[in-house]
Amino acid sequence: MFQTFDPSSDRGFAARHLPALRDSLSADGLDGFLIPHDDEYLNEYLPANAERLMWVSGFSGSAGSAIVLAQSAAVFSDGRYTLQLEQQVDSAFFSLHNSAELSPWAWLKAHATPGMVIGYDPMLFSKASLTPFQTVANHVGFRLHAVSANPIDAAWTDRPAAPNAPIVPQPDEFAGRTSEEKRKSLGKQLAAKKAEAALITAPTSLAWLFNIRGGDVHASPLPLGRALLYPDGTATLFINPDKVDDALKAHLGRQVDLAPEAAVESALNTLGKSAARVLLDPTLTPLHFETVLRTAGAQIIEGDDPCALPRATKTTAELEGARTAHVRDGAAVTCFLHWLAETAPTGTVTEISAAQQLEAFRRETGVLKDISFDSISGAGGHGAVVHYRVTTETDQPLKMNELFLIDSGGQYQDGTTDITRTVAVGTPTDEMRRHYTLVLKGHIALATLRFPEGISGHQLDAFARRPLWEAGLDYDHGTGHGVGAYLGVHEGPQNISKKPISQALMTGMICSNEPGFYKTGTYGIRIENLIIVTEPTAIPGGERGMHGFETITLAPLERELINPDLLTADERDWVDQYHAEVAEKLASLLPAPVADWLRTRTAPL
Amino acid sequence: MFQTFDPSSDRGFAARHLPALRDSLSADGLDGFLIPHDDEYLNEYLPANAERLMWVSGFSGSAGSAIVLAQSAAVFSDGRYTLQLEQQVDSAFFSLHNSAELSPWAWLKAHATPGMVIGYDPMLFSKASLTPFQTVANHVGFRLHAVSANPIDAAWTDRPAAPNAPIVPQPDEFAGRTSEEKRKSLGKQLAAKKAEAALITAPTSLAWLFNIRGGDVHASPLPLGRALLYPDGTATLFINPDKVDDALKAHLGRQVDLAPEAAVESALNTLGKSAARVLLDPTLTPLHFETVLRTAGAQIIEGDDPCALPRATKTTAELEGARTAHVRDGAAVTCFLHWLAETAPTGTVTEISAAQQLEAFRRETGVLKDISFDSISGAGGHGAVVHYRVTTETDQPLKMNELFLIDSGGQYQDGTTDITRTVAVGTPTDEMRRHYTLVLKGHIALATLRFPEGISGHQLDAFARRPLWEAGLDYDHGTGHGVGAYLGVHEGPQNISKKPISQALMTGMICSNEPGFYKTGTYGIRIENLIIVTEPTAIPGGERGMHGFETITLAPLERELINPDLLTADERDWVDQYHAEVAEKLASLLPAPVADWLRTRTAPL
Repeated sequence: MFQTFDPSSDRGFAARHLPALRDSLSADGLDGFLIPHDDEYLNEYLPANAERLMWVSGFSGSAGSAIVLAQSAAVFSDGRYTLQLEQQVDSAFFSLHNSAELSPWAWLKAHATPGMVIGYDPMLFSKASLTPFQTVANHVGFRLHAVSANPIDAAWTDRPAAPNAPIVPQPDEFAGRTSEEKRKSLGKQLAAKKAEAALITAPTSLAWLFNIRGGDVHASPLPLGRALLYPDGTATLFINPDKVDDALKAHLGRQVDLAPEAAVESALNTLGKSAARVLLDPTLTPLHFETVLRTAGAQIIEGDDPCALPRATKTTAELEGARTAHVRDGAAVTCFLHWLAETAPTGTVTEISAAQQLEAFRRETGVLKDISFDSISGAGGHGAVVHYRVTTETDQPLKMNELFLIDSGGQYQDGTTDITRTVAVGTPTDEMRRHYTLVLKGHIALATLRFPEGISGHQLDAFARRPLWEAGLDYDHGTGHGVGAYLGVHEGPQNISKKPISQALMTGMICSNEPGFYKTGTYGIRIENLIIVTEPTAIPGGERGMHGFETITLAPLERELINPDLLTADERDWVDQYHAEVAEKLASLLPAPVADWLRTRTAPL
Repeated sequence: MFQTFDPSSDRGFAARHLPALRDSLSADGLDGFLIPHDDEYLNEYLPANAERLMWVSGFSGSAGSAIVLAQSAAVFSDGRYTLQLEQQVDSAFFSLHNSAELSPWAWLKAHATPGMVIGYDPMLFSKASLTPFQTVANHVGFRLHAVSANPIDAAWTDRPAAPNAPIVPQPDEFAGRTSEEKRKSLGKQLAAKKAEAALITAPTSLAWLFNIRGGDVHASPLPLGRALLYPDGTATLFINPDKVDDALKAHLGRQVDLAPEAAVESALNTLGKSAARVLLDPTLTPLHFETVLRTAGAQIIEGDDPCALPRATKTTAELEGARTAHVRDGAAVTCFLHWLAETAPTGTVTEISAAQQLEAFRRETGVLKDISFDSISGAGGHGAVVHYRVTTETDQPLKMNELFLIDSGGQYQDGTTDITRTVAVGTPTDEMRRHYTLVLKGHIALATLRFPEGISGHQLDAFARRPLWEAGLDYDHGTGHGVGAYLGVHEGPQNISKKPISQALMTGMICSNEPGFYKTGTYGIRIENLIIVTEPTAIPGGERGMHGFETITLAPLERELINPDLLTADERDWVDQYHAEVAEKLASLLPAPVADWLRTRTAPL
């Protein structure tokens, strides 16, 4: 199993680890320490040796931070994690805060005193993420001190070793462009900016730029490392030599120099000494590297990671791969839904066994590389916890006449999937059906949009919400995120949410379409398919080509939860056509009983 | 007539005035000069003595700028004014540019050389608007020099005198809050920010804060002046003493000191010398004042103009006034539409005579203070020019089987109106009907929205566009702008457009709802009503209160242009209900023949 269900921390973490950290701080002459969730790669998912926030506080959520002073300490996360914070963090040691109500820097402003020296690890902060703390430091009159060794690592006696998985080529047939093409193309952009090098520190950008994949991080095939790209398209790739074999060397070719990861620092020093102009992304690059460059004399050009936009606009091969992966994954999900329909009413299915069974069906494809994130498997009230992660401590059975929400995905060499289905166990109430149908209406509204070039996700987000808004309801998460091609299941720079962003939706981007509704303590509903932004095409009688979305996720919706009376004729047609496509594309991959079952589930409403 | 139709400039302006300006620059030792459209109040509409851009170039549009160097000169505006630029500006003297394609600072970067001294008038730039020029100056190596006297004013021998209209109180019964209440409330905000004063330089903010109105600017009852507001709610109002009579003094009361406008400079100096903390809005305040404050030693607190948000969220009295004004104005517009229906088919109506007739009907109300902007009166292809302003040189008759678009508004003491109607003269084509109906569908989609607190206009804008997008069409302007209460017809901080803004739509804001479609050279369609953001109300079965919009503009839509087959049942109901409300609310104000006509025009579809 890729997914594990043992709690990764407990409420004893704070009592066991906070005093040890304070000793370490005291030995280093620090009055306090800033602890972000991020690791040295500013990754979303962390290797076990980088779970510093969890180690010190017990909090295992995917977003948050802590601040430790001698007499006080606090943990911060967002509204999704309020409950989890209370469960995992011992409030005798940490005060617990929703960062939307009290930001970490506001807390620090109230608790720090002039003259204090507060440490931070400059490998774990970007320039952008440190800025608000620096502002407070200037205001209060304490000093922020960049530590050269993280005091947590000194105190953490049983810290796991750094991961060291081999790195393998991602074949050109899946990538659709050779690494050389990509490097030459970005190299020209560097030349146009008169940059002598670009520092690439995000593993997802390394993966894309060199057409490589790694295994250092759970659920995302990221190769941990760094790179310098030069205007002529050559590059230096800084990775642990243990991860490299001859096949990888042959794949990378002569234009890519290999060097140990630790050598990046001296390479930056050398660049700085020649006063080189170096492009880097101040939101993605550990501040330490910026400091090394500046100190050595480099001229820093701040800009977006040059890999981000070309990575998001997928090649034809990547899109074709995504479609193929979604047929395969859709068949596995459909087998799971069929199993669930047969088994759940017996009362023997729990949140964990459901997640295990789904992973088992995905493994049966024979080509599953990993799951794309830990399944959110929530029965009843757990479904209303948007980022619920079931453990052996929280596991509960699926009960009759409740809803069950499962959000999951797979990593395949040809594509990354992410799908949420909500199913009724037994007989749903009219209210459940009404809420599900409102969510479905929003999902359809987004799926069927046509829109011109230059439109960003925040301009479309409300279409998915309108049916809920008209009913006095809403959901407190984004409607869609970017998805990688056998890479991160959350990928920028596009997004479909309330938050304004400058990046327009562009042809070939893959996004999720996942409106939801959550009745606190009772049930959660989410309907998630992945969609591809299609190229602008002419419309008869029109003047401008319009983008659209192609839905690529294939699995039946929960017809017991659809109230057709609340759908327009066009919406009913959409459901029927979607279901017909699901049945047609999956039929040949399914065992006969599942195919028969699917036919009944995808018959016209 | 408030509106005049003589061309305010001609193509000879550049030949006559540019050499004179260059002589003036040469005498001042300047290598060039920046000429924004803005005046000393950063107003949208300018008094005649501030039409410097028009004087030097001939360009009379409402947005643009020019740069003059010794050997080259350029005028910039946006896509709305491309045609007008070509007509008004002699290209032998100025190169003409769409600023979206070539910004003024990019042009300057290409034309200025190191060592040059380029002048600008610091009364006509905010800190924010000068910034991009400063960036280019640093890059190229020329110097920006703030002139103490504008060289245009020296060269402009027949420059009109500054306006000097009396200032009158806006009675509390219309304002809904006394000036003292407003000043005390904002004063508390200043105290919370530890500011010792706020500098208010926008005339629309003076008008709101002191409940006064002036007549210095066409179409907007603005009192030109400045003010300093103090934390205790007292203030100093800097206005020309000629504009003040005893009634105004009595209205302002003892808490407001009066001083000549020119005295603001010494007041800022005095504040600076005491190292006072002074709040100002860096996007609305002439840079000169910021320089005076800084030089004298003040601490500047940058922030939004504190009047902006409370001005936008109207009082109950202002909303009631707006409704009343819209009934009165709607009756005048309906009389005009009736007149047009009777007269246009005879071929005797021109764009100018139509605008005059509409103004005449508004004057007949007996309480019209001004028009709220120069009517956009466009027949046939002129309707497709979004900011068309008819003159005696461009006037043309309304022809049979063409469309006519008229966008107009009135200033009344109880409210400001802004309405666009598009009418068919003779028989419209199917295509005209289809396009009008698509625009109407977008208008209805916005008018009927429900949405939660915290939503900004850019999140809703696309609802008004979706029916057009589905047909491969769009319009290149915003969907809605804020509207004042007997103040500017364009008012921030809210907006409904593609452009992201942080200001949420809040209860009591008035906006326009004006989607359109423009078939270049053939016709323009726009349907504009004003809408009030209603307070969040509960919806049965819902969890969150939802805002909505109340449409307050009252005049019949063009039923000849509505194709009911393209409307949903809900959309048809909306049209019928809107028309029923128009008929009911206007009937008693209309002469019998007009009321009879209106009944036929507002019968159910």
